[in-house]
Amino acid sequence: MPKPVKPAWVIDKERARRTAAQETVWLFGIHAVRDALMNPARKKLRLVLTKNAADRLGEAVAAGGIAPEIVDPRKFDVPIDEGSVHQGAALEAKPLDWGRLEDVAVSGEGAPLVVLLDRVTDPHNVGAVLRSAEVFGARAVIAPQRHSAPETGALAKTASGALERQPYLRVGNLSDTMEALKAMGYLLLGLEGEAEMTLADGLAQAGSRPVALVLGAEGPGLREKTRETCDLLVRIPSAGGFGSLNVSNAAAVALYAAATR
Amino acid sequence: MPKPVKPAWVIDKERARRTAAQETVWLFGIHAVRDALMNPARKKLRLVLTKNAADRLGEAVAAGGIAPEIVDPRKFDVPIDEGSVHQGAALEAKPLDWGRLEDVAVSGEGAPLVVLLDRVTDPHNVGAVLRSAEVFGARAVIAPQRHSAPETGALAKTASGALERQPYLRVGNLSDTMEALKAMGYLLLGLEGEAEMTLADGLAQAGSRPVALVLGAEGPGLREKTRETCDLLVRIPSAGGFGSLNVSNAAAVALYAAATR
Repeated sequence: MPKPVKPAWVIDKERARRTAAQETVWLFGIHAVRDALMNPARKKLRLVLTKNAADRLGEAVAAGGIAPEIVDPRKFDVPIDEGSVHQGAALEAKPLDWGRLEDVAVSGEGAPLVVLLDRVTDPHNVGAVLRSAEVFGARAVIAPQRHSAPETGALAKTASGALERQPYLRVGNLSDTMEALKAMGYLLLGLEGEAEMTLADGLAQAGSRPVALVLGAEGPGLREKTRETCDLLVRIPSAGGFGSLNVSNAAAVALYAAATR
Repeated sequence: MPKPVKPAWVIDKERARRTAAQETVWLFGIHAVRDALMNPARKKLRLVLTKNAADRLGEAVAAGGIAPEIVDPRKFDVPIDEGSVHQGAALEAKPLDWGRLEDVAVSGEGAPLVVLLDRVTDPHNVGAVLRSAEVFGARAVIAPQRHSAPETGALAKTASGALERQPYLRVGNLSDTMEALKAMGYLLLGLEGEAEMTLADGLAQAGSRPVALVLGAEGPGLREKTRETCDLLVRIPSAGGFGSLNVSNAAAVALYAAATR
């Protein structure tokens, strides 16, 4: 007896539900898809490629262990944002499982340094932070499960490969995580434009202790509870009265200063 | 006798020619348009607003000294990239005239620090560099007239107001400009991932001399001629073998290090 076939609308509904629940993510673009295919830790669910993209990704497709669906470029129909530059390559995958905070923050690779993002929702900013965090050897980028940029394709593209390699931990409650990091010996430095202490002075106080850099979204900045939970509030010194760094640039500067202290 | 009216196609053709020749730029989005309207040095040619945007920009419109054309949101037809988030506000303007390199680099405001961009074409990156340059008090961001991001709306949005305040000089030939800066006493530090010297050591060598930071585009990096014209090649130290900073983050780190040396 043939297996019953699910109607298309059931498949669509199931897919929408999985995506909404963040059980799966769609990565797109040649580089992001290649990085994910080459990552053995990445659980791959569905690979959609144009013939041209399949040729470009030949080696990665072979390594990925998932058979591609080859589609006509004019019928490239995957649930990614309209206008996204997918280059004919999209991969549905599970978010990476980076394990427990304790394991990553205490015995992870690299310098004792982590970044916490308080409601940074722009995927381009989070992607750039992941990229910088990798360069400066931070153990993890940590963000609340809600009100943060999910592992979307746009984030993966901006992260330029770092999404596959840089631990990005989503936690239930950021203040609880901050307290847990304190208990592990981390000093929590919150970045705030109005702070009196400079970043350099804050890092000097930290000495050789593990450091957590806490950054808020542009505009709202750190939430009150987050600010109160920091050990020190520090600012990146600026020359004039105007302007402020965007959050990914502030993170890069703070990571550089912490990594080279 | 009534003045002869230009047909629409003539107006369109003239507008396309002006834009192509970079005689004018279209800025868009509430913030970018407000900043430009509030800037007395900005020559404004045409202001197109929805009723809603006009209400939000009330004060700036009054300060701008140009009568807005109020249009129906469904008929918002200005020559900006499709998909741009214009928020119902667009302004056609002249690029700002920042004067001569000699004047800006020698007697400009702020620390003796400039940034040179070698063929950085992504407007988001250039916008973020302008923003960081302002924060760290660089005298100018300098880029070749050709193969660089023009003062488009996307750049203005990312620059978050800095486009109106931070000198952005477009020059004919980057190496000639580098030689001119040397003659003024600037030490030219080229950023390159493969350099042996670190950024911190390069800045230590510079001491209190004026510094020019030279950055290339992602991928190609510095062109050979640009690299040869630098006094020193330096790298931002990275933790592992993987990854690299995006150009705006590299610029922010280098500007911070130079400004706090």
